[in-house]
Amino acid sequence: MSILDYFLGPRKKTANVARERLQIILAHERAGRTGPDYLPQLQKELVEVISKYVSVNPDDIKVQLDRKDDLEVLEVNIVLPEVARR
Amino acid sequence: MSILDYFLGPRKKTANVARERLQIILAHERAGRTGPDYLPQLQKELVEVISKYVSVNPDDIKVQLDRKDDLEVLEVNIVLPEVARR
Repeated sequence: MSILDYFLGPRKKTANVARERLQIILAHERAGRTGPDYLPQLQKELVEVISKYVSVNPDDIKVQLDRKDDLEVLEVNIVLPEVARR
Repeated sequence: MSILDYFLGPRKKTANVARERLQIILAHERAGRTGPDYLPQLQKELVEVISKYVSVNPDDIKVQLDRKDDLEVLEVNIVLPEVARR
């Protein structure tokens, strides 16, 4: 399965809802090593960069962090406003 | 299926290879609208931000852009070097 299929799957169900969405997924595989957890700070900066391209309402940003074994997955879901982009 | 399962699936097969990986996936659902394609420039800036946190060799960055219908998925795969992070 390609990652494209992953996104196409659940989206099809809501295809009639005409909302524009941006989803960022950051997966970090640590390979058994420990180290500083920089994902939260990194995520903050990534959202700042994205805000330069699209006008984002902070309330429309949902962040979720999942961990399992050596894998850390940060998921950022942004619903873009209806107004035109900058 | 959660996005965590997606990453855990293929990774398990290569669990014995002790490499550290960072994967960024940017999915943009346009909801039928057309607009400027800012993903390539955005991706460049995202990699710049990530480089502040981890030392990345540009040769170890693989970028792939997939499009289907109103969905654009940018996938950035980074193999992190064995040396300690900054």
